[in-house]
Amino acid sequence: MEEWDEIDVPNNVKDIFIEMKNTAELMVDLAYSSLLFQEKEIAEEVLELEEYLDLLNYHLMVKAVLAARSPKEAEQITAILQMGRAIDEISNAAADLAKMVLEEKLHPVVRDVILESEETIGKVEVSPDSILVGKTLEELDLATNTGVWVSAIRRGKRWIFDPDEDTKIMPGDIIIGRGTRTALDYLKEIARGILKVMRNE
Amino acid sequence: MEEWDEIDVPNNVKDIFIEMKNTAELMVDLAYSSLLFQEKEIAEEVLELEEYLDLLNYHLMVKAVLAARSPKEAEQITAILQMGRAIDEISNAAADLAKMVLEEKLHPVVRDVILESEETIGKVEVSPDSILVGKTLEELDLATNTGVWVSAIRRGKRWIFDPDEDTKIMPGDIIIGRGTRTALDYLKEIARGILKVMRNE
Repeated sequence: MEEWDEIDVPNNVKDIFIEMKNTAELMVDLAYSSLLFQEKEIAEEVLELEEYLDLLNYHLMVKAVLAARSPKEAEQITAILQMGRAIDEISNAAADLAKMVLEEKLHPVVRDVILESEETIGKVEVSPDSILVGKTLEELDLATNTGVWVSAIRRGKRWIFDPDEDTKIMPGDIIIGRGTRTALDYLKEIARGILKVMRNE
Repeated sequence: MEEWDEIDVPNNVKDIFIEMKNTAELMVDLAYSSLLFQEKEIAEEVLELEEYLDLLNYHLMVKAVLAARSPKEAEQITAILQMGRAIDEISNAAADLAKMVLEEKLHPVVRDVILESEETIGKVEVSPDSILVGKTLEELDLATNTGVWVSAIRRGKRWIFDPDEDTKIMPGDIIIGRGTRTALDYLKEIARGILKVMRNE
């Protein structure tokens, strides 16, 4: 990942917030993935995202404090700062999990816990004859059509974290996704080329 | 909700953990719902769940410490305690958000942030002629079939938090769900009786 200095931080309180919420949620997903698959690379990404989130939180504080012009506004702005802190707490928790992966302090029960939770994490390789190949995430809309939320994609040696709507699925991609066991199994059948059609197609 | 003393706490480390992870995730969903819809009842539920999670964490610590019989085991068990603390941190963050709803310290930006996040919260009323009516959540499997995760259901004056697979959808139910905007819109069309078929039917 690049230096944060070169990265655009959104310019207003609302957009900073949305970025913070999305980032914290991605961090939790990636932290669980790193625990389940014992992938240190994913764990390191979580720690980098934590730094990014701290930066966002700092910008939020600066902008919020500058915006306060009356006691009433100051009170509302305090609420914004509290919400920022709550999101920051979630990101710290995700970072704590990631550190356990990096320090190799893992217990066999961890894998079972994640696998047996209602909402879990899975990975699946995309076969060359899958209907996913060559389509963008926007076209596929896997969250709606399969119930699986794509957290990351491994392409050869490279990881794509937080893929966006223009990311195109390639043969051999390994998709890391979050969903119910049923939803993940359904996506697996599609990715392996067993199922040749998705809802809405 | 009942007194926790009367509630069965799972009996082994793994099951306590799974319960903790599911509870923390439910708390985050409910906290965002309470912020978005300014529902104090949901916010109070979040605070009750926080107490339950503290109790689970306490049981986890007791069982983990009792299980340690060697320095190597003690190290692994420390990892379990750290994971428990990370999940507890997430639940504290959710509780902080819920407290803001109860103290009415809200800022208009909060609603926008949740609505414009990638994954968001929505609510929809079930019309009497919807195909959802009379089916259980297990039969419907909305997470897989629509990409929407059901967090809670309001039935008249009553809230059903964390509905399970046997919960049956009734006409007039208000479903609070988490998903992408597209997934939530899709569920709305089904709940309103506009769409008469779901994938897999």
